This record gives sequence, structure tokens and C-alpha cells, in this order.
Amino acid sequence: MRLRAVAAPDQPDVTPALEQLYRDFEQELLIPLWTEIGDLMPEHPRSRAVPHLWRWESLRALARQAGEIVPVGRGGERRAIALANPSLGGRPFATPTLWAAIQYLMPGEDAPEHRHTQHAFRFVVEGTGVWTVVGGDPVPMRRGDFLPQAGWNWHAHHNATAEPMAWIDGLDIPLQYFTEAQFFEFGRDEIPDEERITPDRSRSERLWGHPGLRPLSATSLTPPSPLLAYKWEFTDRALADQLAIEVEGYGGTVEPGHAAVRFANPATGADVLPTVRAEMHRVVRGAETAPVRETGSSVYQVFDGSGTVMVGDRTWTVGRGDLFVVPSWEPFSARSEAGATDSDSGALDLFRFSDAPVFEALRLDRTQHSNGKDDR
Amino acid sequence: MRLRAVAAPDQPDVTPALEQLYRDFEQELLIPLWTEIGDLMPEHPRSRAVPHLWRWESLRALARQAGEIVPVGRGGERRAIALANPSLGGRPFATPTLWAAIQYLMPGEDAPEHRHTQHAFRFVVEGTGVWTVVGGDPVPMRRGDFLPQAGWNWHAHHNATAEPMAWIDGLDIPLQYFTEAQFFEFGRDEIPDEERITPDRSRSERLWGHPGLRPLSATSLTPPSPLLAYKWEFTDRALADQLAIEVEGYGGTVEPGHAAVRFANPATGADVLPTVRAEMHRVVRGAETAPVRETGSSVYQVFDGSGTVMVGDRTWTVGRGDLFVVPSWEPFSARSEAGATDSDSGALDLFRFSDAPVFEALRLDRTQHSNGKDDR
Amino acid sequence: MRLRAVAAPDQPDVTPALEQLYRDFEQELLIPLWTEIGDLMPEHPRSRAVPHLWRWESLRALARQAGEIVPVGRGGERRAIALANPSLGGRPFATPTLWAAIQYLMPGEDAPEHRHTQHAFRFVVEGTGVWTVVGGDPVPMRRGDFLPQAGWNWHAHHNATAEPMAWIDGLDIPLQYFTEAQFFEFGRDEIPDEERITPDRSRSERLWGHPGLRPLSATSLTPPSPLLAYKWEFTDRALADQLAIEVEGYGGTVEPGHAAVRFANPATGADVLPTVRAEMHRVVRGAETAPVRETGSSVYQVFDGSGTVMVGDRTWTVGRGDLFVVPSWEPFSARSEAGATDSDSGALDLFRFSDAPVFEALRLDRTQHSNGKDDR
Amino acid sequence: MRLRAVAAPDQPDVTPALEQLYRDFEQELLIPLWTEIGDLMPEHPRSRAVPHLWRWESLRALARQAGEIVPVGRGGERRAIALANPSLGGRPFATPTLWAAIQYLMPGEDAPEHRHTQHAFRFVVEGTGVWTVVGGDPVPMRRGDFLPQAGWNWHAHHNATAEPMAWIDGLDIPLQYFTEAQFFEFGRDEIPDEERITPDRSRSERLWGHPGLRPLSATSLTPPSPLLAYKWEFTDRALADQLAIEVEGYGGTVEPGHAAVRFANPATGADVLPTVRAEMHRVVRGAETAPVRETGSSVYQVFDGSGTVMVGDRTWTVGRGDLFVVPSWEPFSARSEAGATDSDSGALDLFRFSDAPVFEALRLDRTQHSNGKDDR
Repeated sequence: MRLRAVAAPDQPDVTPALEQLYRDFEQELLIPLWTEIGDLMPEHPRSRAVPHLWRWESLRALARQAGEIVPVGRGGERRAIALANPSLGGRPFATPTLWAAIQYLMPGEDAPEHRHTQHAFRFVVEGTGVWTVVGGDPVPMRRGDFLPQAGWNWHAHHNATAEPMAWIDGLDIPLQYFTEAQFFEFGRDEIPDEERITPDRSRSERLWGHPGLRPLSATSLTPPSPLLAYKWEFTDRALADQLAIEVEGYGGTVEPGHAAVRFANPATGADVLPTVRAEMHRVVRGAETAPVRETGSSVYQVFDGSGTVMVGDRTWTVGRGDLFVVPSWEPFSARSEAGATDSDSGALDLFRFSDAPVFEALRLDRTQHSNGKDDR
Repeated sequence: MRLRAVAAPDQPDVTPALEQLYRDFEQELLIPLWTEIGDLMPEHPRSRAVPHLWRWESLRALARQAGEIVPVGRGGERRAIALANPSLGGRPFATPTLWAAIQYLMPGEDAPEHRHTQHAFRFVVEGTGVWTVVGGDPVPMRRGDFLPQAGWNWHAHHNATAEPMAWIDGLDIPLQYFTEAQFFEFGRDEIPDEERITPDRSRSERLWGHPGLRPLSATSLTPPSPLLAYKWEFTDRALADQLAIEVEGYGGTVEPGHAAVRFANPATGADVLPTVRAEMHRVVRGAETAPVRETGSSVYQVFDGSGTVMVGDRTWTVGRGDLFVVPSWEPFSARSEAGATDSDSGALDLFRFSDAPVFEALRLDRTQHSNGKDDR
Repeated sequence: MRLRAVAAPDQPDVTPALEQLYRDFEQELLIPLWTEIGDLMPEHPRSRAVPHLWRWESLRALARQAGEIVPVGRGGERRAIALANPSLGGRPFATPTLWAAIQYLMPGEDAPEHRHTQHAFRFVVEGTGVWTVVGGDPVPMRRGDFLPQAGWNWHAHHNATAEPMAWIDGLDIPLQYFTEAQFFEFGRDEIPDEERITPDRSRSERLWGHPGLRPLSATSLTPPSPLLAYKWEFTDRALADQLAIEVEGYGGTVEPGHAAVRFANPATGADVLPTVRAEMHRVVRGAETAPVRETGSSVYQVFDGSGTVMVGDRTWTVGRGDLFVVPSWEPFSARSEAGATDSDSGALDLFRFSDAPVFEALRLDRTQHSNGKDDR
Repeated sequence: MRLRAVAAPDQPDVTPALEQLYRDFEQELLIPLWTEIGDLMPEHPRSRAVPHLWRWESLRALARQAGEIVPVGRGGERRAIALANPSLGGRPFATPTLWAAIQYLMPGEDAPEHRHTQHAFRFVVEGTGVWTVVGGDPVPMRRGDFLPQAGWNWHAHHNATAEPMAWIDGLDIPLQYFTEAQFFEFGRDEIPDEERITPDRSRSERLWGHPGLRPLSATSLTPPSPLLAYKWEFTDRALADQLAIEVEGYGGTVEPGHAAVRFANPATGADVLPTVRAEMHRVVRGAETAPVRETGSSVYQVFDGSGTVMVGDRTWTVGRGDLFVVPSWEPFSARSEAGATDSDSGALDLFRFSDAPVFEALRLDRTQHSNGKDDR
């Protein structure tokens, strides 16, 4: 800790008395506001994170190598490899609040059971065959599926197939690291045989996966979401329906050519996790989303299609599996365009997760639309 | 108004002075508590309504006759015929708070557009071919479908087929009559052609009928339910799923052999209407539900199967379409049994609606289970 | 029950077939909508209640006579005499949802302990010396004090002085009578000596009666209001403060010359009782409130001052203690004027209670201001 | 960023292939979970902050020197000097989420008007004479007063006396710094004369400072707290009342000899600021609070009296004005004892603020009592 007296219009004159005062401050573990206010209280958020893009091809290749070299088991717990935002001090933090990692499981492997207060989800951009067992309920994982994993639930993974499988883990690890809220416990070392099955639908889906219907056996159930899998077939259909309604002239989309759904807790309609929002966006070929800036940060993964994304002053051409981050208050927009390997008809499907529920719970959410309209 | 002095242990002595006091009370429009307390403040609810059963066959036959004789149009508004609880003073009130009616529409007929603060729903026990247009969104009606119609939305009906069709209307008319909250407005006299279509799914279903997914275009949407139809195929599957989970040994049902779902607002998880709860119950052949008594009243309709229902001290054998009421604090249970016309394999499917959201909002809900356990 | 076929533009033709249909309806306990819709679904609320005024002088005189003649004790429970709206069928209902009564207790008398689900309050327009013991906590009652008595709490009264005392009881008896939610239990026959004291402040006031401060010992406390007395000195000062702020040019009042406070649950800020709202209004000499119509009904008592009140098409000159009712959707306004017995400087203080929380909980509240602006 | 392969039971074997994999990870900005899990996902919170004590005498002396040397004005905005937890990297953060500073204003000085999203409060441990003007409403500050300053409200300070004055500022600056939610705007350069007055009570207190009473003119008012000052006389009386009730044998305190109140939003009963909880605790001479550990961190200031406080494995003797921090999950207890300068009769009054509302909003709150009972 070292306080520096600098000559500046809004700073006190640099005098020996000031220098002595600063030394005394240091001695007593004190820091004045007037030297720090520009950093601590900026006119608007200036993120310490930067926009960055990770290519799926590279990620998957390195995860595959890790599959060869690094065993998965108790202690390390998961073969997960996290995105490290280049300006966040070499920590495995995609943004100041969000963790994003690729997880990789070899044929027949188990990732051991544990639980933690960190809220998590899985999202499957390719492959099939792994299930996650949550509180004794095996949940299959297939391309496009979104699996929330609310904090403090026991969970393990198993790859029941002959192929390796990779997927994306999203968690609020940085948020709980900064707020210092984390608890962790090891679970059973072996998953019993009756849980080592892969049903077509988990029990949670059979109880809670019917639109607008809630089981009476579970009315006292409180958050988080009792639904453990949001299958791609429903997400895909919901997006297609919105676009069809738009074509018929009745709205339904966020903006022209841009459909989107939010993964919601069917028991409350609220976000699927207390600290993480998850959405799927579809931008039809040729359409472009209007730039928006929001407090809070997001991680996107291209689920399908190709296009161009603009984050702050960065622009990237992206394709399936690519991941990128949008720091707080950086403008974001996306355009759907045919890539080298796409057919002409496809849309750009973007999976997004963010820390929006945190900002809303603390009443810190703010949005600025490109038309100059602010939400608050 | 006539106050009577009676000789009773908890009443004041009958004297000329008391008689004069009561005359003076009458003169000033006053009534003492001590003569009324037994009626007004009983130890537990003693409903003014009685349990009663209406046979579907009779209802439908009379509705058919009304279809021949009574036109439907502006002024009368609907060819609806309401259940009148025999002890509620000859008013068209199934229970003190609930209205239940059979509505009947002839081929090609329109029921004109209007809106009212009363919350309503349609439930279809047989037939197909009518649609309800709600705020310009045509919603098809088929057997087993549940269509909520929240207060103050414009709505009309049209029978687009060559057959008459009947269904059940449920509303909170008596509640709003007693509390004096009702508003009503006439709508357009003609439904425009673009709304005179019968899509397979309404726009509301295409936006909101995907499990756990909410459209981003509608995030500011508040109650009541944006979902205008709960199709039978989903209800049926949800009940079958619960029973299958029970067979597998994991619970999922309300009690053995008794599955049930509640129709919920997908935006909030709350009841589908602010004043009306609606549920579908399935009791497997041979099973019997445990008696329960609750504050508040219900109307049941047998959707399928047959069995015996017990309401207070009444017991009836019931079959498809039969309607009956359960007054406040009367014990209710149901047993599924083969009827004269049923196949042996069927279950008893009971549609139920009640005023439970009113009691919960006012914190007046109380439940007594047969095992002596009280909820509050 | 008797259905009449009448010749009218919006009614079916009166034919023998129609007459027979109506006889068949009666036989099956059915009533058509088309003959009832005008009564059940009016364009706006048309209350079955009428505006009415009860003079305090007459009420108090009759209560005093009842004090001489009618004992208070177990069975009758309370020497309470209720206002009976002249058009509500001779029932002791001030409005369709509200009970208002004068209660009278002779020197040394006890009103025995009981509890009931009906929500209640006391308001003291004159006198002092009675206390209410609520859950073992003795609460003194003095002129201007408001004492909420949430449902299902044990309570008793005792007059510890040498003078009789009268006050007003407000309850939701009619609401719970129509919805059939009532439970009642007798309490202890004798209040123990340690509860037969009259402290200056109840324990509830000492725990919860500090502005914006909540005791940590009670953080899990849920509604209803833990504060059992709202003393006049605070109410009076709050009204005076609002008027002073208005004079200084900073608003603070409802409208010019019209200050008002709502009695709120300090643990939630919500209404003091789940089904009853209570407020104190002060209209300065010469001011007049703008007419307002609202769904739901109110009972007013003049606490102090004199003036003219307009309810629907009725106008009355009122003074201290007078009670009147405002039925649903009837316009109301009040003007403060010097009465025969008032000094020139006084304001008109009006105590009001209503069923507004019921309407808000069920989303049936609607307000129409005299400027044509509607709230919903 | 530098990944190190280490030989450990739960780590992969250190091989050239692993070393190469780690170099490739670095290249692609990736970090594995298995090397970080111990730090990121501990069994329970292990705070990066440490318990630390700052002596009021030193703080005040340095603030006084700053008053001589450092002008207050636009740019630096405030003469505020913050506590810097010794293990938080030399940043002015008392804990990972909370800012605590001494602010000092010379006679006649103005601290210029601005607003920011950070939520703030003032607490006055000694002195009088400064007012804070909030949205044009001047609020006087006196010993013991607590003044919340919710985010995004304009505010300025002025010392209207001939004496310097010091007080404590608490804010959620670190939280908003990590989550990157901050906005800031400069206000008017001069406070107009009509706001340069020192009324006995602010308008906010006159509207909202009456126990259990809310002004009807402000019913649509939403959080944050409309009450801008919580005067010491009420806090003191509330604490005394709790202790008196305890003496009478009726509880009322948190534990024997330990009274406490929470500063609450009178419009909702919730915490006074969305991200900061504030409380006043009183421990009677000789009493000791039971150790408690909680997720989330606190800052305490001794308001009066003296005693011993235990934080984690640290123990300090404290007196008036001393400040100390309790990091997440560190046990805390306090004992009231006569200090060198205290009279024998005094109690230990501790002002506390914490980030508890953040933890509760995100459902991350957890408490462990010394009796082994866990909450949540």
C-alpha cells in the first residue's frame, strides 16, 4: 500500500505536509477518497474485463488433450477448463462475476458427486451420452439441452457412451469468490446402480416439464427451479413460433428477425438460477440486433449458424461453439450472415448467460438502447 | 328488520325494558351482536350452500332445448345456464363465491364480444369446433382443454362447425356480486374475418406454451396468465407421468393412486386466475382419496371414468360430465370404480375449480386432513 | 326459485316452449344467464347498500341503556351493537363486507377472552380507561387511539375505571360470512391478575412503536401487524406535520388542506389488517375534498370538528362521533365547516375504514377521480 | 498468468505433456479448475479480509490534519478517509464489499452536490452542526443519528457551525466496484439559500417519522427508504424499552442483556438500503453476546461504553468511536465491561453495518450459532 501525492487540478497541493499525511495514512491503514474517486466512482461502468473471443476448435482440442493426460476424480473433481479474461489478473474468471468452462468426460468416466453453494448449469453445444445425476435423478444431456444446477444440490456426471463428450459449464464462482459466500461438500464416492441409468426424461421433467402445469404433490416447492433440463426441442420450437408470429404480423419477437427465450423457473416464472440468467437468441439470416449496453456482464456461445458480433470496439466473425464475453456497459450487437461452412438458410443461434438476476435483485440494473432510451 | 328477545342461557332476560330497547334499536337501524353471534361467528364454517349433484345428461338435454328456443345475441350475451345451489336463495350461484354454467352454441352462431371484471374460464368435457377469440387471438376449444379468461379482456365465441357444442363456464360472479366490484362493457358487434379462423394453436400458446421458457418480447408482462389454452394432451401426459413415477417408487403423486396438476400462470407460477384455482385430478381404478376439508368451496366435473364421491354426508355414483359442489369445510373424497358403461381399465378424472386463491390472498385458507393434521 | 319469462328486447320470445323450458330449469336447479345478467354483470358497481348516517348521540344513548339492561358475558361475548345498512336485508352489516358497532363496557366489567378469524380493530372516539389484553399484553385505550386486532389472536377487554366507556369496533364479519371462512374459540374464563394492569404503553408498542426501527428479536415476525396500538399523539402530529409542509410550499398533503395517514404494519408497510384498511383524514376549516369513487365500501366516523359530507346523492351535516357509510362506487367528498358547537379554528378529522386490501389483493380495485382520471 | 504443475495427491502427474498442456492453456487464456478448486470452492468461506481494529483517536487526529491541509471541493468531492483492510491489496476496502470512512468538514465548508448509484449512509459518533441536503431536503446531523443515503439521490453537506465535524460514511463501493454497476453525476455547484437552513426535523422525518403511519400523499412510493434520518432519541428509547421488557420477564431482547434494533424502511419494513443493513446493539454491563458466524462481512463502530470484542482469533478492548471489521464466517462476540474512562453503569452500544441484504437477496445467507444451530 503506497499513497502517492500527485499534482492535478482536483488534488491537494503536493507539499511536505501532504506527503507526511499520506505516510501517516499508510501507517494507520487509511486511504483517502480524493485520490481514488476516479477509479471507484466513474461516470459509468468501465469494466476491468475486456471483450474477448475463444474459438471452439481450440478449446475442444485442448480439452481433448486434457482428457488424455489429466484424470478426473476426487479432489480435482472435474476436468473443467475455464476461460480467463485477459485483464482480470490471470484468474479463471470470464467476467468479474461469471465462470465459463469447457468440461470433458471420457467414455465410462465418472465425475464424482459433490455439492456447493455456487449456482451452475450445463449447456451442450455438441455430443450426447452423458447424464448428470442430481439428487438421485439422472438427467440425460444432448445437443442444445440446458441443465440448471442450483446451488447446494448433490450432483455427479457419468459418460455412459463409447465417445468422449464436451459441454459448457457456467457458474457464479467469481461472484461468490468476491462476496465470500462459498460452501462445498464431497458426496458419495460411488453412484449406486439404480442411478446409473439414462432415461429419456428425468423425473424432474416428467413432474415439471408440462407447459403451465404444476404438480400438486410439490406445491410447497420454492426456488430454485425444480426443472432440471430444458430440452432443445422445446427451445427450438419456441423460437420458431416467435418468428412465425412475426411473419404473420403480430409481433412476438424482441425486434425484427430476432427471437429470444429466457430459461425460467416453472414454479415462479423467475430466472432459472438466483444469480444467473440464461437465454437463447435466434437471429434470422440477414438480420442484425440493435446495439444495447447493460450493467452486468454476459458470456455468449454460438450454438448454430454464423455471423458477426460487435462487442465494444471489437468485431468478430463467429461460428458454432465460439465463446465470447460482453463486459459491463459495453455495447453489443450481432448480425447473422452465411459463414464459409453454413448453408444459406440458417439462422444465428446464440446461447447467452449473464449475471442479470444479481443486478435486478440489488436494483443495480440499467439498460441503454441504441435509440437513446434508457431503462432503469 | 325485526329483533326478537328470546329466553336462552346466553341471552339477556326478556323484560319489557329489553323489548323496548330492541324496538329502539330497530328504529335506529341497529342490531346487537349477542343475538347474532351464533350465526355470524360459528366455531367453524357452516356453509349456507349444500352439497348437490347435477347430471350431465339432464344439463345437456336442457341446453340443447335452449339452443332451439333461445337465441344468443347482444343483451343476453351468452346461452349459459347456471347451477343454482338449492340453499342459496334461488340465485344462480353454485357456491357462495362460484358460478358454474353450461354454455351451448349452435352451428355458425356467434356469442358477441364483451369484457367484464369477472374472471372466467371454459372447460370442454365433450365436442370440438368452437373457438374463443381473446383480444384478437383465436383459441380453438377441444375436449379436455382448459381456457382461462382473465377479467377485463375482450372475448367472443364462434361455432365454426356444423354441430352444436356445449362446454362449462366457471366464473367468480357471486364473489364479485357480494363484494360489488363488477364492471362490464360491450365490444364490437362483428368479429372481423381475420379473427374468424381456427388455428391449431393460438398465438398465446405459441408464445407461452413451451415448458419453462418465457418470450423475451414479453418480460414486462404481469398477471393474469398470458397462456390462453391448456391443451388436454399436456394435462393428460402430466398426470400419466406422475403415476408412472409413483410406480417406479419415487412419489410424484398427491397420495397413492391420486395424481393432480394445477393450471398455473407460466409467467409467475401462481394460480391461473386471481380468484379461481383450477386443477385436474386422476384417481386410478380402485384408489380412494383421503377425506379433506378446506375453507372455501369447489365445483367438480367428472371429465372421464366413473366412481363414487363423498361430500359431507352425501354419497353419489358419478360418471362423465356430472357436476357437483363441495361447500366450505365439508369433507370430500372420491373413489374410482368401474361404472355401468366404463371399461375396466379407466381412471376417474376429475376437473375441479375453487375459490382458493381468494382465501390464500386474504390469509383465510385452512385445511384439515383426515389424519388430523391441520394446515394453516 | 321461480323463473319468469318476460317480454323484453333482449329476452327470448315468451312462448309456451320457453315457459316449459323455464319450468324444467327450475326442476333441475338451473338459472339462465340471460335473465340475470343485468343484475349480476352491471356496467359498474351498483351497490345493494345505501348511504346512511347514524348519529353518535343516539348510538351512545342506546348503548348506555344496553349497559343497564344487558349483561356482558360468555355466550353473547360482547355488548356490541352493530350498524345495519337499511337495504341489506335486516342483517347487521354496515356495508356488504364491513361490520361497525358501538361497544359499551360498564365500570369493572370484563368482556371475556376469545379468538376468531375475523379481523377487528377498536377506535376510541371518547373516553378512557378500558384496556384490551391481546395475547397477554394489556393495551390501554384512550381517545383517538386505534387498536388493530388481527384474526385468531386471543383478546379480552376490561374496564378498570369507575366510568362506563364506549368505542367503535370494526370487523370484516360480513366478508367472512359470505366467503364462509370463520373459526371461533372461547378463551380463558378469567384474566389472571398479572394481565389486569394498565401500563402506559403495551409491550407491543415498546417493541414496535419506534419510527423505522424493528427489534432484532422479532425479525421472523410475519403479518399481521405486531403493533397493537396507534396512539393519537402520533396520528395527530403526523397530520399536523403534513399540513405544515404544505404551508411551506412542499406538498405533503393528499390535496390542498387535506392531510391523511394510513395505519400500517410497521413490519411490512402494508395495511394494518389483511382485509381492512384504516386511515385518519384531516380537512382544514374551509377546505373540501375532491369527489372520488372507488370500488369497495367504507365506514367513516367523525373524530373531531364538523362539516358537510356528500355520499352519492346524499348530503349530511356531521359532528363528533357521527358514523356514515360510503357504498361501492358512490362518489364521496367532505367539507370542513364550523358547526353550531365548534370553535372557529378546528379542522374536520375523519376516521375511515374500508375493505380496500381485499380489492387490492384480488386486483379488483378501481378509482375514479373527479378530474376524470381513472386509476386501476 | 502462469500455470504451475505441482506434485500433489489430487493433481495430475507432473509430466512434460502436462507442462506443455499448461503452456497451451496459457496461450489460449484458459485455466483448469483442478489447480484452483481449493481457493475458489473452499468448504466454507475463508475471507481474504482479516479482522482489524482502527482507533477513533488516531482516525480523528488524522482527519483533523486533513482538514488543515486538504481542501474539499469539486473533483475530490469529499474529505473522506477510508479504512483499508490490510489484506485486501492496498485498496480502500474495509471488507470485500463495504467501504467505511471518516468524513471531516471544517466550519462553513460545503461538500459539493453529486449523486451516484452507490448506496451510502452517515452515522454520527460525535459532534453536531452539519446538515446533509438530500433532494432539496436539509437533514440535520447530531450524535447518534443515522442518515441513509440511497443510491442515485442528489446530496451535499454543509457545516453551518463554527466547529469542525467528523462522522462515519458507509457505502457499498467495493461491491459496486466488483460488480461494475457504478454511475456518477455532478450536481449543482452551489446550494441555493432556501436549502441552506437547519430545521429541527427534515421534511422526510415529518412525513415518514411517525410509528406505523404512512402519508397517503406518498402511497406509490417504492424503495429505498423515504425516511432520511433515524434520530438517536428513538433508537435509544427502543433499546431501553427492549431491556425493560426483558427485566419484566417477557423477552424482547436478542439474548439476555443484548438489545438490538434494525434501521428499516418504514414503507416496506425491509432494510434501509438495498445493499446495506444497519443496526444498533446495546449490551448491558457484564453481559456477553453468544458467538455467531455469518456469511457476509460487517463493520462495527463503538458508539458508547467500552468492552471487549472477539473477532475470529483476535480480541480487542474497545471504547467510543473505535471501528473494527468482521470478515465473512469469522465468529464474533462482544462483552460489555467498564473501561478506564467509563462510569460503572454504562452499556456497550455498538453500531453495525453489513452486506446482509445482498446475501439475502441472492439467497447466500447462512448463520451458525454457538449452540451449533445453523440457519438456512
